[in-house]
Amino acid sequence: ALAAPAIAQTASPEIRWRLTSSFPRSLDILFGTAEGIVRRVAQLTDNRFQIRVFPGGEIAPPFAALDAVQSGSVECCHTAAYYYVGKEPSFAFLTAYPFGLNTRQMTAWFRHGGGNQLAAELLRDYSVVGFPSGDTGAQMGGWFRNEVRSLQDLQGLKFRIAGFAGQVFQRLGAAPTQVPAADIYPSLERGVLDAVEFVGPHDDEKLGFVRVARYYYAPGFWEPGARLHFMVNQRAWDSLPDAYKHAIEVACAEADSEMVSRYDHSNPQALRRLVAAGAQLRFWPRDLMQAAWRAAHEVTEETAGRNERFKKFWESYRRYRDEEYQWFRIAENSFDNFAFVAAAQQQR
Amino acid sequence: ALAAPAIAQTASPEIRWRLTSSFPRSLDILFGTAEGIVRRVAQLTDNRFQIRVFPGGEIAPPFAALDAVQSGSVECCHTAAYYYVGKEPSFAFLTAYPFGLNTRQMTAWFRHGGGNQLAAELLRDYSVVGFPSGDTGAQMGGWFRNEVRSLQDLQGLKFRIAGFAGQVFQRLGAAPTQVPAADIYPSLERGVLDAVEFVGPHDDEKLGFVRVARYYYAPGFWEPGARLHFMVNQRAWDSLPDAYKHAIEVACAEADSEMVSRYDHSNPQALRRLVAAGAQLRFWPRDLMQAAWRAAHEVTEETAGRNERFKKFWESYRRYRDEEYQWFRIAENSFDNFAFVAAAQQQR
Repeated sequence: ALAAPAIAQTASPEIRWRLTSSFPRSLDILFGTAEGIVRRVAQLTDNRFQIRVFPGGEIAPPFAALDAVQSGSVECCHTAAYYYVGKEPSFAFLTAYPFGLNTRQMTAWFRHGGGNQLAAELLRDYSVVGFPSGDTGAQMGGWFRNEVRSLQDLQGLKFRIAGFAGQVFQRLGAAPTQVPAADIYPSLERGVLDAVEFVGPHDDEKLGFVRVARYYYAPGFWEPGARLHFMVNQRAWDSLPDAYKHAIEVACAEADSEMVSRYDHSNPQALRRLVAAGAQLRFWPRDLMQAAWRAAHEVTEETAGRNERFKKFWESYRRYRDEEYQWFRIAENSFDNFAFVAAAQQQR
Repeated sequence: ALAAPAIAQTASPEIRWRLTSSFPRSLDILFGTAEGIVRRVAQLTDNRFQIRVFPGGEIAPPFAALDAVQSGSVECCHTAAYYYVGKEPSFAFLTAYPFGLNTRQMTAWFRHGGGNQLAAELLRDYSVVGFPSGDTGAQMGGWFRNEVRSLQDLQGLKFRIAGFAGQVFQRLGAAPTQVPAADIYPSLERGVLDAVEFVGPHDDEKLGFVRVARYYYAPGFWEPGARLHFMVNQRAWDSLPDAYKHAIEVACAEADSEMVSRYDHSNPQALRRLVAAGAQLRFWPRDLMQAAWRAAHEVTEETAGRNERFKKFWESYRRYRDEEYQWFRIAENSFDNFAFVAAAQQQR
């Protein structure tokens, strides 16, 4: 007890970091999740560890957040790892995979199914430590100028789509392209794009897509959840006292459920407003879903055939997915299927 | 900066608390969630705030954890609020409600839909502050000695079932009873019970039910998720420094997703072992589900008619449920329904 004040003093240094987000301030849930994390870290450290959050583009480009952290020009970032599939396709498994794990299943895989270990090995190559920290839930399939009545209607379609899923749409005949959030609307308006997917009703409403493309498809089968990562430069991480490391870990774990709960809260209301504003809600044609399932698995097996790391990820991820899917059908899905329909009938 | 050491000293007192859990040590996820929370609180406070966890029955009976915290005989507990529906039926909304919100929807309602405020008003009457802190996911419908082929087979059935759902089963003709986890198996073995529900494969396997009742029903429509609460005596709470309060808050938020992810990880494997051990998996007959939906809403409306607080809860909860259900059908559920089946077909 006598030594306590001295220990407390050295264990709680004043630290100031910068964080670069991949998202603009206007996307309040995506950008705000990083703000929530740093607020929590400050609270847990009596305001001694403060991290300032910058929107994408201010101190690093939106899709170069990882690079900025790797080089040490900023200490940390909040980003989607699948923005970096150009460096290494395995990054896709950290964020969202076509016909992959849904939000809850992804959390289980990261924390208990080996996902976080595989991710740590991958991120180590970039001198980065990473923490899953926020999810969107199952996304929408995006906004299309024209109705998509069959697979045929995808041919040559200029489609903004993020991550590994672009390769799946390429195989289906579309012309995929990756565009940062802030540039999507202008590209759609100018006709550089025929269709866009971003996240779901809450964000899509803010981005104004309904004004230029009114067919709104479900589900975003390539993002049955999309996880963000809080990434920290390895040397910056090593310099932290243990309690500050724990503060980041727990704040990211909190963000994991907090972000999706904000989407779950906001999406129903946003969807209602979008439909009132003219959005035409559609489910994908069945032939397109089935072709996409096959294409996704083909692209995956081909990539696994030439990339050992990707193969290791896919083997872990696929085995986990198949087991989770089987179990979720029994209790979760049978409940949802009965109750969602019964409530809709009662309201009529 | 000059005053910092003195501030650090007073802001970080050494504190020792006791926590009474409603669960036995053998149920590693239910009991272990409290252990995870107190471990995290210790990490965040450089081990200065330590809470010792006691299993149900050691320092307070499993179903009297709230009473022990209210009286101040222990500072905090980890329990399911619906164990206290005998005091006030509104407690049901804090844990699980028949045909109610699923795990993700419940998190959204608590944090953003007014649920936590309503819960705080209720808990204030018991001089307690509470935090949602862990969920089971959708539960199974339980273990039956004999097959349930229709509603008729429920008549007179002695069924261990927790919380408000007992009233629904009473209306359906069963004889519900609430029994603590540790006493369920002996009661079933001695024939005091004909059927039991507890949680799902992981816990049910540990409790050994398959050895005496092999028909295993899905889903547990009265628990589309079941949330635990970390409850703290109000005076004990008020005595904490802010950073320690934040440590409890964030550790509980982490537990919210951590507990369900442990279940999501463990249930698939446990279910496979149970089926190998002779469990006969069954879905509820449709007439029973439909009758249960009606009975649940009747009991609810009647209770709301004579209890103002319950009515206030139900109005908030029901409006939220109906909105969430509508949205979840669009993206989450349409994805799950396609992908879960496609993966099963691919494996054949």
